[in-house]
Amino acid sequence: MNSDSRERMVRSAASLISSRGVSATSFTEVLSDSAAPRGSIYHHFPDGKDQLAAEAMRWASERVLAHLRAGPVGTPSEVLGRFINMWRNVVLASNGASGCVVAGVAVDVNAGESGLIDVVRATFRSWVALLGDQLEAAGISRERAGSIALATLAAMEGALILCRAEGGVGPLDAVAAELLQLLPAARSRKKANVSRSPRG
Amino acid sequence: MNSDSRERMVRSAASLISSRGVSATSFTEVLSDSAAPRGSIYHHFPDGKDQLAAEAMRWASERVLAHLRAGPVGTPSEVLGRFINMWRNVVLASNGASGCVVAGVAVDVNAGESGLIDVVRATFRSWVALLGDQLEAAGISRERAGSIALATLAAMEGALILCRAEGGVGPLDAVAAELLQLLPAARSRKKANVSRSPRG
Repeated sequence: MNSDSRERMVRSAASLISSRGVSATSFTEVLSDSAAPRGSIYHHFPDGKDQLAAEAMRWASERVLAHLRAGPVGTPSEVLGRFINMWRNVVLASNGASGCVVAGVAVDVNAGESGLIDVVRATFRSWVALLGDQLEAAGISRERAGSIALATLAAMEGALILCRAEGGVGPLDAVAAELLQLLPAARSRKKANVSRSPRG
Repeated sequence: MNSDSRERMVRSAASLISSRGVSATSFTEVLSDSAAPRGSIYHHFPDGKDQLAAEAMRWASERVLAHLRAGPVGTPSEVLGRFINMWRNVVLASNGASGCVVAGVAVDVNAGESGLIDVVRATFRSWVALLGDQLEAAGISRERAGSIALATLAAMEGALILCRAEGGVGPLDAVAAELLQLLPAARSRKKANVSRSPRG
């Protein structure tokens, strides 16, 4: 009943939810995957599967935020690249089978039926807020930074779904290339874009 | 056992999968929602729930393709707008609770465990192909048209997830505005960029 088994269960839940959604992720599978003792479920997660799923989202979210914060300010494309590459590595490591734990909850959960959607919403908002702040620090106007951050999250979440279908990273790479197209136009609006060649 | 009850079941399955994913969509709920007689499951869907889910995706896909084909060629932004507005209406009609039936299968299904992922892949490809053809017919270069079509699908799929979290259409509208930003640059690259100022 140590905290090590608790963390293993949270990690296993995050991994399973990322690859099959929360509905098909059972306590039995989490126990099997994490090699935790059966009694540890009720010890660590007295409120049941929703509590485990919420903690799995929080655990994953902290990793996302820490990954984004770990880099330098850099250029807008470096900011987006850091976020994109994080998901790209998830796809590459799993041949597309793994995606985003938050999406794996969001798609399965009805807003009226579970408090989990509140964790989904708070998590997505925290990612968009940090990404937007970083884009702004890199020179994108405040209004556009929030909008590009939201579009980037949406496009990556959708790309992860397309990568599951294709069993590889191709769709994500194509989507990433389009996202980067959003940046120069956004910057030129703020900075008169003196560094680009006349042919744009 | 008439074909009317069969179609009602397919529609109900599409609706349920769109709002809670395929794992949490049971035959029992489909029967309840469609008011179909219990015996009709095995009569109409001898291969079980996967067969019903596959038909729900095909039914939804035909509606998507028909909706896209119903409009005139128009401008690139009109092409994207037709696709975007279709999803926007889904969100508006459900306060974000309903999304895409294909995503509701893709997120829940492991590639190794079910043939459903083949239907998911074929469906997504058919949408990207039609959207790409329409963008090209509207003046976007062939290479960029396919890439923009893919990014648009990814961004809409992700936007639907964000709209579930927010309970409204706000995220989709913000994402749509960014997608439309992709178009002028894409067109200018094909046309030697004569219409843009030297400052880019």
